[in-house]
Amino acid sequence: MKVIKIGGKLIENQATLERVVGALVGLGNEPFVLVHGGGTLATQLAKELGVEQRMHEGRRITDARTLELAVMAYAGLANKRVVAALSSLGKRACGLSGCDMGVVVSHRRPVGAIDWGFVGDVDSVDADVLSDLLDKGICPVLSPITCSLGGELLNTNADSVAAAVAIAMADRTEVEAVMCLDKPGVLLDVDDPESVIPQIDRALYEQMKGEGKIFSGMIPKLDNAFSMIASGVKAVRITDTDHLDSGTLIVK
Amino acid sequence: MKVIKIGGKLIENQATLERVVGALVGLGNEPFVLVHGGGTLATQLAKELGVEQRMHEGRRITDARTLELAVMAYAGLANKRVVAALSSLGKRACGLSGCDMGVVVSHRRPVGAIDWGFVGDVDSVDADVLSDLLDKGICPVLSPITCSLGGELLNTNADSVAAAVAIAMADRTEVEAVMCLDKPGVLLDVDDPESVIPQIDRALYEQMKGEGKIFSGMIPKLDNAFSMIASGVKAVRITDTDHLDSGTLIVK
Repeated sequence: MKVIKIGGKLIENQATLERVVGALVGLGNEPFVLVHGGGTLATQLAKELGVEQRMHEGRRITDARTLELAVMAYAGLANKRVVAALSSLGKRACGLSGCDMGVVVSHRRPVGAIDWGFVGDVDSVDADVLSDLLDKGICPVLSPITCSLGGELLNTNADSVAAAVAIAMADRTEVEAVMCLDKPGVLLDVDDPESVIPQIDRALYEQMKGEGKIFSGMIPKLDNAFSMIASGVKAVRITDTDHLDSGTLIVK
Repeated sequence: MKVIKIGGKLIENQATLERVVGALVGLGNEPFVLVHGGGTLATQLAKELGVEQRMHEGRRITDARTLELAVMAYAGLANKRVVAALSSLGKRACGLSGCDMGVVVSHRRPVGAIDWGFVGDVDSVDADVLSDLLDKGICPVLSPITCSLGGELLNTNADSVAAAVAIAMADRTEVEAVMCLDKPGVLLDVDDPESVIPQIDRALYEQMKGEGKIFSGMIPKLDNAFSMIASGVKAVRITDTDHLDSGTLIVK
């Protein structure tokens, strides 16, 4: 099975969303769990409401009001748009946030040098909930709003949710995680979309990193990929939604 | 089993929500489906964004932008707040909108004297989806955002969704619908909360209506109740969340 992560930019615009969902449905009968972002919708809403957004290293610091906007944007608009678009193509889907059936339990990130506010880090994924849906031919569509055991909604990084889901599912079946970016894969030349590296293993990664050949923005994505693989995920594909079966395959 | 409908006012404020959810969990092991509104959250959001709201006979005319706000407020914030609050009391719940697993299919209301915009009227409820969850001890929590077969999200009246759910479930089991208002039941004297009429059947209703003893705002609620009963629902209780087992019982 696949765990596919798409960014919020793909959901913002109805035409783009329909193209993406068409590609996903084009995967045929292979079961998949979809994890989506929604940052651009949340940012836009905050801007319209005049709610100042504070970011740190590209991540959103989430005060109480920003959490409300994130819940509305991710768990509401983004999630239901994706589910409705899948349904319209005949793919039964079920939108879920972490609180639903306790599917993704997290805890609030402790205050350190930064107080992230209502930001969650994932503790566990209930793979039974996801398997039950998949067994019925239903595609789980997960927003990155998770929930603590105490019932606190928390804003969580979608890449981290996707990784936790892939790792949890890998305990019971062969999992490929597909992390969709706005590039067709890991590029040898960041300005040349034709320069996709087809496969990277740990040895090649270390070598390329040593030679300064990996674009710095890609390093956290690749580290996340290798950590999934270390935890039992068969392979991680880094690609865009136009190339769900190609891109760069990250393997052990 | 029970189908319980609560209004949006009860979700707006965290303290009120916790009280309501406490009362629901106090029902013990009896399974229930919860249907909630969210109008006050949507109205507040629209006000903050300066999106003008047009109402007709107390119902919201829903243009494209208002639909987005409704999806965010109902399917996002209201739905996840209720699910998280139930979870925090140990009640497993699953938030759903109509698009999720196709649980509530609707169609866009045809343009007549009024163009309601993206407002849906319910066609069908998939009782299997709800029964599957209830059988697992999971409480389905339904927002009034429904979905057409073509994948169009539609804003739907929560009372109508609750009625459709109660009727669909009544095909397979004994159903009591509990419609929670801000009054403890149907009152003989609208200013005296002690004047709750314990039971109303069709004959008494017609008699009281004839005598002008039914407060006009209650007539659509009672008509809705009798139409549920005519479609197989065992009884409808009109009450508030502090009196889930008392209030006014509407019977055949």
